[in-house]
Amino acid sequence: MFRAAFARSSLVQQVQALPKRNLSSAIPKTSPLWKLGRLNHVAIAVPDIDQSTAFYRDLMGATVSAKVPLPDHGVYTVFVELGNTKIELLHPYGENSPIQGFLNKNKSGGIHHICIEVDDVYKAVDDLMAKGIKALNPVPKIGAHGKPVVFLHPKDCHGTLVELEQS
Amino acid sequence: MFRAAFARSSLVQQVQALPKRNLSSAIPKTSPLWKLGRLNHVAIAVPDIDQSTAFYRDLMGATVSAKVPLPDHGVYTVFVELGNTKIELLHPYGENSPIQGFLNKNKSGGIHHICIEVDDVYKAVDDLMAKGIKALNPVPKIGAHGKPVVFLHPKDCHGTLVELEQS
Repeated sequence: MFRAAFARSSLVQQVQALPKRNLSSAIPKTSPLWKLGRLNHVAIAVPDIDQSTAFYRDLMGATVSAKVPLPDHGVYTVFVELGNTKIELLHPYGENSPIQGFLNKNKSGGIHHICIEVDDVYKAVDDLMAKGIKALNPVPKIGAHGKPVVFLHPKDCHGTLVELEQS
Repeated sequence: MFRAAFARSSLVQQVQALPKRNLSSAIPKTSPLWKLGRLNHVAIAVPDIDQSTAFYRDLMGATVSAKVPLPDHGVYTVFVELGNTKIELLHPYGENSPIQGFLNKNKSGGIHHICIEVDDVYKAVDDLMAKGIKALNPVPKIGAHGKPVVFLHPKDCHGTLVELEQS
């Protein structure tokens, strides 16, 4: 956390020290190592996934997927299609589900994380960790879509759990 | 809440009572009155919007907008472009900001709401309220993009604050 705080603090100081007119040319917009992509999904943890599915399908008029149990991830998932991206409804599966603690704190449910695609998740996590951002799993693991994913620590992403998924 | 709970409970019972094979044809996918659209943005409330902007621009490589004060809404906003949609960074502006309470509870920041476009926000809110969903502002108000918006009550949307914006 100290490394992350220092890296960010130092970066912000550098940015603030630059004349504003030169900011866009002085700071590279993209890393040469990897590239941020589209928002793959917003994940919402819910206490009753059938009721939430009915809400998005029957009251909101969205197309929804079937409910899929993912025992390896300890969740049931339903995807709500929104045209440009998806909502991923999550509900605990089995004991020791990674979202049970979140639902214990947020009994009505709540937005759990956002998932952004990257063109190379291995380079992305190495680069971000070198810049002081902590990953919950520094070695990418296979996510709900069968692709390698990394979760960045919410404390280093301003309170938001950010999942990076290989595009 | 009782109306909402009853409406949803009754709807789920109806859905569950139907033979599964006939579900897709028996339940209309869209309301004839209005249509759900794309995810306009995910809003994240942050305690230091310059630091969060630097994170998404300089560490994640995203294109970000200028910081815009919106005194009428009591927030500063920065939009982070993700290709298919946007992250809206929010920070309190002035006293009585509507997101100050959220930041008091979530000192590191957190995901505040999702905004989904609809083709007719007036028909959408009337229809949803008739089905028992509570709106924080039953009469649409002008949102951050200059378009009419409605916020649905988180308790009726499984813990998630849902903004509907006229597309």
